[in-house]
Amino acid sequence: MKKGIFITFEGGEACGKSTQVKLLKEYIESLPNKDDFIFVREPGGTKIGEEIRNLLLNYKEDAPLPMTELLLFCATRHQISENVIKPALKEGKIVIADRFYDSTVAYQGFAREIMSANEILNLTKLAIGDLKPDKTFYFKLSPHEAFKRKANCPPLDRMELEGMEFHQRVAQGYDYMANLEPERFCIVDASKSIEEIAEEIKHEFNTLVM
Amino acid sequence: MKKGIFITFEGGEACGKSTQVKLLKEYIESLPNKDDFIFVREPGGTKIGEEIRNLLLNYKEDAPLPMTELLLFCATRHQISENVIKPALKEGKIVIADRFYDSTVAYQGFAREIMSANEILNLTKLAIGDLKPDKTFYFKLSPHEAFKRKANCPPLDRMELEGMEFHQRVAQGYDYMANLEPERFCIVDASKSIEEIAEEIKHEFNTLVM
Repeated sequence: MKKGIFITFEGGEACGKSTQVKLLKEYIESLPNKDDFIFVREPGGTKIGEEIRNLLLNYKEDAPLPMTELLLFCATRHQISENVIKPALKEGKIVIADRFYDSTVAYQGFAREIMSANEILNLTKLAIGDLKPDKTFYFKLSPHEAFKRKANCPPLDRMELEGMEFHQRVAQGYDYMANLEPERFCIVDASKSIEEIAEEIKHEFNTLVM
Repeated sequence: MKKGIFITFEGGEACGKSTQVKLLKEYIESLPNKDDFIFVREPGGTKIGEEIRNLLLNYKEDAPLPMTELLLFCATRHQISENVIKPALKEGKIVIADRFYDSTVAYQGFAREIMSANEILNLTKLAIGDLKPDKTFYFKLSPHEAFKRKANCPPLDRMELEGMEFHQRVAQGYDYMANLEPERFCIVDASKSIEEIAEEIKHEFNTLVM
């Protein structure tokens, strides 16, 4: 049976991840087999998920509490895993996700300290079963550099408004996951230029999928 | 320290629960200490909860999968518990909820068979900690009678459209909880007339809160 490849993009605020996802998308659009690839974004990626993404990122009044946030992420993750990612992988497609459960460990586990990484991974298992990325591009940037970058591009959403210490804990969370599964993680030095990183991603990507 | 009272209304479709909540509300409005009471409804009861309630009940396209639904319920329940119910009880208020976690055991546990009642109660504990109703009015109606009643009042929402077997399993779920905690449950014979039930509720209610 054909088996697809699941690739995730992860990293803290202002790490340049979204720019690189966009560039990879453009590159894939130029490929003859472009229909073998699908992009999803977390939270969201399904219609109901996009609604919840909107609630999570932009709800100012009655903002979701940390545990509410965690459970909403788990809910959207279940929906997108079952309805989009698993069926696509079964068809042999290459699925590229902008954030997945490493974000939850980093943001809800380490940064918000709602529960331990291990408890988050257990809850994640409830939501997605044995689904796991084959490769994760982790855009590593010092929290200090991230903070400096953010200052130049308002408006910020609710999560981006968090302070420096929060971003430091996010970085710790990603480092924890990268240490836990070094073979899955491809660590990208996010302080490099957009062009350098794009080349590096393209190279790694071609090795993986071609 | 003053400690409030937490009362929930539970039951399957067409059991008359909402009518009785409305009648109790009218009765409370006539009381001199009406400000000591607050009503909440599940899912919802907070602004973000109402948005999710809307997604849960009326989203036809990309309808939430059973596990998505369960996690969304847990998310809204956390939000309403922390922001509304617990603070009100701490102030000594009487909180009346239209549905709480017994609904989840009945609907998501027994009817949809997503996980066991025990696993649902564990997940609930994650969402609401040690919060528990002091008294639960359970409107018990035979699934056959419920089905007959439904036929006369369209339009039905997504959950109400489920078949007879589903409603039988919902009833089993409520019976399970009622057997587990008989002292908490006040079982109301929902086949009685609206007036008879209203009198019974008012009597029990007065015993509890006066």
